[in-house]
Amino acid sequence: MQDIYEDILRLAAGKIRQRIRAGDYASHTAGLGKGKLQANIAVMPERYALDFMRFCQRNPKPCPLVGVSDSGNPNMFTLGQDVDIRTDVPSYFLYEHGTFSREIHDITTLWQSDFVAFALGCSFTFEHALMRAGFSLWHIENDKTVPMFRSNIETVAAGPFSGPMVVSMRAINKSRIQEVIAISRKFPLAHGAPVHWGDPSEIGIKNIDTPDWGDASPVTDDQVPVFWACGVTPQVAIEQARLPICITHKPGYMLITDVDDDAEIPVIAHSNS
Amino acid sequence: MQDIYEDILRLAAGKIRQRIRAGDYASHTAGLGKGKLQANIAVMPERYALDFMRFCQRNPKPCPLVGVSDSGNPNMFTLGQDVDIRTDVPSYFLYEHGTFSREIHDITTLWQSDFVAFALGCSFTFEHALMRAGFSLWHIENDKTVPMFRSNIETVAAGPFSGPMVVSMRAINKSRIQEVIAISRKFPLAHGAPVHWGDPSEIGIKNIDTPDWGDASPVTDDQVPVFWACGVTPQVAIEQARLPICITHKPGYMLITDVDDDAEIPVIAHSNS
Repeated sequence: MQDIYEDILRLAAGKIRQRIRAGDYASHTAGLGKGKLQANIAVMPERYALDFMRFCQRNPKPCPLVGVSDSGNPNMFTLGQDVDIRTDVPSYFLYEHGTFSREIHDITTLWQSDFVAFALGCSFTFEHALMRAGFSLWHIENDKTVPMFRSNIETVAAGPFSGPMVVSMRAINKSRIQEVIAISRKFPLAHGAPVHWGDPSEIGIKNIDTPDWGDASPVTDDQVPVFWACGVTPQVAIEQARLPICITHKPGYMLITDVDDDAEIPVIAHSNS
Repeated sequence: MQDIYEDILRLAAGKIRQRIRAGDYASHTAGLGKGKLQANIAVMPERYALDFMRFCQRNPKPCPLVGVSDSGNPNMFTLGQDVDIRTDVPSYFLYEHGTFSREIHDITTLWQSDFVAFALGCSFTFEHALMRAGFSLWHIENDKTVPMFRSNIETVAAGPFSGPMVVSMRAINKSRIQEVIAISRKFPLAHGAPVHWGDPSEIGIKNIDTPDWGDASPVTDDQVPVFWACGVTPQVAIEQARLPICITHKPGYMLITDVDDDAEIPVIAHSNS
């Protein structure tokens, strides 16, 4: 497995998608497709799509919308050359009536003529920028999943979509808080600036050592816990909305697009259907 | 009229909307509601709303989406306190089957239970930022309308919405082009960085002295014409789509929101329906 990862690591985004589509790679995408935007995915019937888009527009920090397919068209042409959302994500989660049903590696047989696919920006983008600026991120250095918490910050509802904002936590040196805010604010398509830093209880988090998702991560005396809006937020909203059918990516197993990580807009030149 | 403008100039955004709603002010909004985001408006039946939202998502520079109403609800609660889109814009244009029908100051009697209202960011925001940085903008200093041109840059289509990107031109000193790009790029909700600078013919503009909308504006020997994506683009797309009914703001007569001009996201705290 490690050998395959090392091999994939050297490939360009389009080639990686081909390997995933062929069934040759079905693992996480952290570090892959260097310099390209990776995206969270949600696929749902068209009758929910307008409300879900409104939900994303009203909650742009947890749900930074970077792409939307035409109804029934699995080709997400604004995000890259030949991006087939039925096959190009390494692993998918199927939800039925708001409940996790099963994990699958290809949704071709599940695809419906009224499906709309959404792509949302993810934290990989600003994490890369922080690392380039010399920040060390504990969960990456220790090969763990970032700790995530249900906060008491409510999202702005749209139709059936509502619920708490989920936040991810990274411990940052006290002296560099303003710097981390300034850097991440430059990436509105990747959750933007933190939503909170300091006392976790102020956003309803009782115990920083027991995250709701991911792995507990230490905060040393010279560090402050910094919280960003998290892409798990729309997954919780989708579960609460109890859609008859909805498909998401498996967390960490993202769509790798052809859009540059630092692009001003998430649309490749000469997009067409 | 000038007296009323001077009076309105001192008011906060919410108070200005009240005056507009009461029918006490029905003129342009340039310079009003200092420091608050102003927005282009488009109102259409729900059956076109998903495609229009996709059009905005795919063309974020001409169509920076800053707000979307619930279907049938004229209260745009994410943009401010008590924002009624039927009454709070100084003047509206009604289009029927893609053709301009008439100008009206209140759309209450036209409002339908399936209407969705969209608010799009406008150039006032980055123009203010440029003026604060010491740029002089000819059309503002001479009380003219910025010159706008149909370019040969195609938008990315969505459903019935397509067409050329309309661009606005401001003449900028050669030595300050990079600065103007950097400043306006900071405002993705207000068209962002320019789409072109230099030779107008490269984007299909034959004669810089004959704009398709607005007033011709001089470009001196030490200046370069700089082109930004323009909010007239969605109006052209809407006309081409020949919707049975669509209502827009009258150009220059915008919605004044409670959102700060430099806010990270266009959503006021504690938004709720």
